[in-house]
Amino acid sequence: MSSSVLLMSMSLDGYIAGPNDRPGNPGGDGFMRLHEWYEGPDGEFGRPTGPDGEIWDDIQASGAVLVGRRTAEQVDYYGGSHHGVPVFVFSGRPAPESVPKSVTFVDDIANAMAQAKVAAGDRDVIVHGAYTAQKALEAGVLDELQIDQIPVLFGQGLRLFDVLPNRIELDVVKVIDTPAATHIRYRVRR
Amino acid sequence: MSSSVLLMSMSLDGYIAGPNDRPGNPGGDGFMRLHEWYEGPDGEFGRPTGPDGEIWDDIQASGAVLVGRRTAEQVDYYGGSHHGVPVFVFSGRPAPESVPKSVTFVDDIANAMAQAKVAAGDRDVIVHGAYTAQKALEAGVLDELQIDQIPVLFGQGLRLFDVLPNRIELDVVKVIDTPAATHIRYRVRR
Repeated sequence: MSSSVLLMSMSLDGYIAGPNDRPGNPGGDGFMRLHEWYEGPDGEFGRPTGPDGEIWDDIQASGAVLVGRRTAEQVDYYGGSHHGVPVFVFSGRPAPESVPKSVTFVDDIANAMAQAKVAAGDRDVIVHGAYTAQKALEAGVLDELQIDQIPVLFGQGLRLFDVLPNRIELDVVKVIDTPAATHIRYRVRR
Repeated sequence: MSSSVLLMSMSLDGYIAGPNDRPGNPGGDGFMRLHEWYEGPDGEFGRPTGPDGEIWDDIQASGAVLVGRRTAEQVDYYGGSHHGVPVFVFSGRPAPESVPKSVTFVDDIANAMAQAKVAAGDRDVIVHGAYTAQKALEAGVLDELQIDQIPVLFGQGLRLFDVLPNRIELDVVKVIDTPAATHIRYRVRR
């Protein structure tokens, strides 16, 4: 069955981006520290060797990506598609002219998720971005969280979770324990 | 070799206490949710069955406890001793008259840790409390962190980690993965 899965690398103290996060400095100062686990043997982004690679495989097997506008802008809309699957952007403002036609802007989180799920078919929808994650949680349209917890205290930056209106119970689905990251997959309890 | 080990149960979103945390309501609303893993077979605080019990054993094997004043006050100074070992309270203000003589107040974090380590001998020093943890990290006197990460999004409350002056690298020492908690032990990299 298709699930919506938030996918984020987070420091132990809850940061997903460093300070000075802006276009031109995506993810802020030191952002790459949170994504070192996500490197292939050549040091570029790619399938990590060892158990960390399972997360990469899950992403490659997903059928659509739903992303917040801020994240989407910083990565230039993944050039129009993320590993060959359609991209949906959650944003209250209309799409700029320059955005590839393969990218769909939706201003309602439940509607955005519904469209992404249709596009994904029986595959998962990957969700990206802190604000989008919180809105999806609040709307009850996020099924799972894949948190790649990095052994570092960032000290400052942008947090994945700020204040939520309700307490939300989770179930631990799977833990992959490597020196680079503690990968924890949670399912939202309904 | 003796280590200082921060021991805290934390929600996935980084909270160690719920809202309305005050004397009379220690740990705030819903605090017990973060400590359900820490129950014996009778439902009272006690050694959990299964792998969670290893954390309990580590605590019992420690030789001193260093705790922040706020936490100490809320638990009435553990009645003067924590599992039979001495208690040190980090506080800028002098001890009130009512505090048991076995409890030592120290107003400097490095000095407090030094005294606790002497008392502990070759056993570990357990560290408790968010403010005390941050001060110990900043002063470079915290060796390890034992974070019992609970599968819940608390949404609000008191955070373990707020803003730190520096990025701090950690090494994952051990992960114990149970349905109740993901217990991660980190060592601070020097």
